[in-house]
Amino acid sequence: MTSDPARGLRRKARKRDREVLDAAVSVFFEHGYDAASVQDIADRLSMLKGSLYHYIETKEDLLHRIVLEVNEGSEAVERSVVAEPDLGPLQRLDLYVHRQLDYNLSHRKQIAIYFDDAARLSPARRRDVQYRLAENEKFVAALIHAAQDAGLVDPGLDPALYAQLVLGTMVWVNRTYRPGRGPGRDALIAACARYAVHGVAAVTQSRPAPGLAFDRNL
Amino acid sequence: MTSDPARGLRRKARKRDREVLDAAVSVFFEHGYDAASVQDIADRLSMLKGSLYHYIETKEDLLHRIVLEVNEGSEAVERSVVAEPDLGPLQRLDLYVHRQLDYNLSHRKQIAIYFDDAARLSPARRRDVQYRLAENEKFVAALIHAAQDAGLVDPGLDPALYAQLVLGTMVWVNRTYRPGRGPGRDALIAACARYAVHGVAAVTQSRPAPGLAFDRNL
Repeated sequence: MTSDPARGLRRKARKRDREVLDAAVSVFFEHGYDAASVQDIADRLSMLKGSLYHYIETKEDLLHRIVLEVNEGSEAVERSVVAEPDLGPLQRLDLYVHRQLDYNLSHRKQIAIYFDDAARLSPARRRDVQYRLAENEKFVAALIHAAQDAGLVDPGLDPALYAQLVLGTMVWVNRTYRPGRGPGRDALIAACARYAVHGVAAVTQSRPAPGLAFDRNL
Repeated sequence: MTSDPARGLRRKARKRDREVLDAAVSVFFEHGYDAASVQDIADRLSMLKGSLYHYIETKEDLLHRIVLEVNEGSEAVERSVVAEPDLGPLQRLDLYVHRQLDYNLSHRKQIAIYFDDAARLSPARRRDVQYRLAENEKFVAALIHAAQDAGLVDPGLDPALYAQLVLGTMVWVNRTYRPGRGPGRDALIAACARYAVHGVAAVTQSRPAPGLAFDRNL
């Protein structure tokens, strides 16, 4: 096998493919998808535009592959959290926020492109993205629902709405995180997970009036 | 006074001024600030571009006035929360989130323009915006700090970081809210305030290991 010349060629092609995708991520992130051109990506790779078209069909194909990688990365995080044995539902939610944010901050540019530019995809591809995002929301909502069943979360709250708040917290952290500035990455992830899980978890017995939700002794 | 003809003229000028600003908000929101032109705003008002320049100097002036109104609106919310007597620090935080979100959702387009486009302002104006945003973060951090002093919030957490999470939750709600879709406006505001205040408030005694932050019995 090691002497198979086709194997070395395939490995080289995969490596080039990865380089093309990484260059597209940097160019889309820096210029914005709309303003970025295939020429910019070729320049980044010191390639001729014609050679780059050996690897891709259109600029949108590159966007689509970036978005797909984000989908697949998030789905892998979900599977890893489901696979963990012996966790209560809130422990699982906590673990999910940790792992998902860890993934997001390691793919900060891809996540930004995902949220800013997935709407630029063709309708069929966009529908697929929306479906997978809805599945992601359902995953978080199901964790919250399981915590309600276990008596750990107020049964009166809407799991779908709180799932949105948890995911929104993560998107915001991703947007504001700048490596080397502010709190360290681990402190940020821990604070976000604590905030999200406690935000969901607290069980309130009475329905407080809007605007004055807390007992005087709080 | 009522017979003062200058008074009627001033009122008419103020009304026109308001219409110009409202048209700029709609045009910037729909087209994006960069793509929007003074001509678009004139068209929206059925005015000639030359007549519109009677009211403004540049497109950036309009952006600046929109951003200033957001600053002033937020500062008025803060003052109203400070003026409320006899509230504990977490009640005050809860009231702040309610009132600020209520303001934001009533000025959804202006808030979106503020976050998307304030960076387009000239350096001196941008510095003023950044200063006022930092003051807003300090206001929320001070509420959290007061809650720590009152023993209602874990003294180990960083008030500035949690202030960012609270403000981020509000920005996210503002971005995803679509009138007439999803949960009602009041339900959304109540959920967001509950999530944010409980996210900050929960007192944890031990420092849990990252990724497994909860006792098995949670």
